[in-house]
Amino acid sequence: MITLATDFGEPYPAAMKGVIARRTDAHVVDVGHEFPRQAPRAAAFWLRFVLPEFPPAVHCAVVDPGVGTDRAALVVRAGDHALVGPDNGLLLPPARALADDDIEVFRVRVEDPESATFHGRDVFAPVAADCHDVGVAALDRLPALTRTREYDDLHFPAPDIHEDGATGEVLVVDGFGNTVTNVPGDVLADREQVTVDGEPVPVARSYAHVEAGERLVTVGSHGNVEFAVNQGRGDEAFGLGVGDSVVLSW
Amino acid sequence: MITLATDFGEPYPAAMKGVIARRTDAHVVDVGHEFPRQAPRAAAFWLRFVLPEFPPAVHCAVVDPGVGTDRAALVVRAGDHALVGPDNGLLLPPARALADDDIEVFRVRVEDPESATFHGRDVFAPVAADCHDVGVAALDRLPALTRTREYDDLHFPAPDIHEDGATGEVLVVDGFGNTVTNVPGDVLADREQVTVDGEPVPVARSYAHVEAGERLVTVGSHGNVEFAVNQGRGDEAFGLGVGDSVVLSW
Amino acid sequence: MITLATDFGEPYPAAMKGVIARRTDAHVVDVGHEFPRQAPRAAAFWLRFVLPEFPPAVHCAVVDPGVGTDRAALVVRAGDHALVGPDNGLLLPPARALADDDIEVFRVRVEDPESATFHGRDVFAPVAADCHDVGVAALDRLPALTRTREYDDLHFPAPDIHEDGATGEVLVVDGFGNTVTNVPGDVLADREQVTVDGEPVPVARSYAHVEAGERLVTVGSHGNVEFAVNQGRGDEAFGLGVGDSVVLSW
Repeated sequence: MITLATDFGEPYPAAMKGVIARRTDAHVVDVGHEFPRQAPRAAAFWLRFVLPEFPPAVHCAVVDPGVGTDRAALVVRAGDHALVGPDNGLLLPPARALADDDIEVFRVRVEDPESATFHGRDVFAPVAADCHDVGVAALDRLPALTRTREYDDLHFPAPDIHEDGATGEVLVVDGFGNTVTNVPGDVLADREQVTVDGEPVPVARSYAHVEAGERLVTVGSHGNVEFAVNQGRGDEAFGLGVGDSVVLSW
Repeated sequence: MITLATDFGEPYPAAMKGVIARRTDAHVVDVGHEFPRQAPRAAAFWLRFVLPEFPPAVHCAVVDPGVGTDRAALVVRAGDHALVGPDNGLLLPPARALADDDIEVFRVRVEDPESATFHGRDVFAPVAADCHDVGVAALDRLPALTRTREYDDLHFPAPDIHEDGATGEVLVVDGFGNTVTNVPGDVLADREQVTVDGEPVPVARSYAHVEAGERLVTVGSHGNVEFAVNQGRGDEAFGLGVGDSVVLSW
Repeated sequence: MITLATDFGEPYPAAMKGVIARRTDAHVVDVGHEFPRQAPRAAAFWLRFVLPEFPPAVHCAVVDPGVGTDRAALVVRAGDHALVGPDNGLLLPPARALADDDIEVFRVRVEDPESATFHGRDVFAPVAADCHDVGVAALDRLPALTRTREYDDLHFPAPDIHEDGATGEVLVVDGFGNTVTNVPGDVLADREQVTVDGEPVPVARSYAHVEAGERLVTVGSHGNVEFAVNQGRGDEAFGLGVGDSVVLSW
């Protein structure tokens, strides 16, 4: 199985699927192609969330503002998964979620790709097909791969949790407007409400535990604190966007 | 085959696909993940329209404003298809379209799902995989399922059809702006025009039978009366949205 | 393999997938369903770009403002690929990209389709399944197909390239805002900048070779001149949309 995740929209991912289908009969699954554009950190968050649900697979992930520059192409083995993508940190958070300490990073030798603007098609898709066919346990048999210890990493900012509150940051906003922060959900345990911007907001187990249109904070399925509105948009109701700082008090 | 239909947008459905792929090698087909958010009735309309095109399959459908509350999880057997989703009426209109009278409803015993906000991943995807693997004819072998006669149903509002016109309601608007009502298409048979809001509108076999930019009413591929504009948006030209009432006179 | 490309959005393509799955176990791949609506020329550009990446396949492409009129349905054999869709020119540019001179065009005899508004479901999907099952080399065994030399073609406008510049047209804009013209990329060879609207614009190998937010022209992965902004939108920065004329001077 090869999964594909990009910020390309349509129809670029289809070109990647064509390239893969010419090389292997691996089953291809779309993780998503509408990741926030040119925002590797947001994509890394979502991949860390989604990829651990999959059985062992090759995950090709391309959110790549540096395409066509001399940034490297990487393959990261994480347990019995492999991740393929640009060297901008994108692959490391999901790799750690997949296999914690069992991670090896390979740099891909890339020879004169057909374009300087579409390495999804010209570099990453072919490498993903090759990784699939050689098998994740045998990546070192691929002559284009060389083990490396030099690569970009990416870490999510740490929240500041103290006795009477927490300060964090919005990492992503989903399609419902649910606004996901870096604050771990366990800070909400046993609380019935918190204060946000001077106003009380109920802590709820899920959205429909407050009235329709009412604001809430909850622990999302990723385990982090989420600002939401039952049947509405949390980002709008709380005036929050990606990168904004959030303050909860109790 | 397992089909997936949600209002989740990206990347949540990918988590469901991962969960399914870990449990079964069933072929997974996306019906759509951009159904109108938290609107089970609109999704029920589209599923009633689309699912009967499929060969026997397990259809996992999640439009679920009540996630995390005590609303039940259901499996509905409809002929040689099964539908899996929340107990909010969503599954019943497509079930009737698939098998009319040959319907059995099962309640799913759910034990402590991992999250209260993402039952697509934590409840419905695993149940869909289980239904696929046991087979639709043998659902009663799944220990988590119990036959029930108590569940929410959902019916579309009936239009009011009389001698000199019809009053109905907009059920959905598609991506072209075609505005689909609950009025059955046969009311247009042998008519060349109808009156809408005091103005004559041609009845046309298809969009391009009127000039580009011109309004029309037609019988859509779902069999209902549709308000449209050739190469334009019917919703805007008629000032209509979901839930609005429509009056046709003749 | 059957690929699907439409301007339908959701959930109409799922009905096509159901129809195909009832007829064949061919692997179905989505090329995209968000092609610019009712714009066969834009879709033809993208299909010409994407389809040559695929191994031999049947490609079902439906961007069809004339649905329900007497426009014909076509099957085009292009080498060991087949394309299925409406007779409005859409299929010919990708056919030439797939097989240059080895092209045969067949007209499909269509008998009383179920709807006048959804031939994707009622005409093209079944024909694509039939083409897949008979095999691209044996299309003439399908009784519904008749060779024809009469069909609509579609050509992209030719740019005007002269000694001190080029005048072209915007063919498509991608999801990043990259604005793709009909001017062949080789006019940029060995140039470091061009003049657009009286202002100098750097010629760059890829987006990140200029500062974030800065305008550039580059050769896209389709081989044409593209107007872009590093980590921004070229269409907005250059004030360009599909069909607009562009003038480069050097």
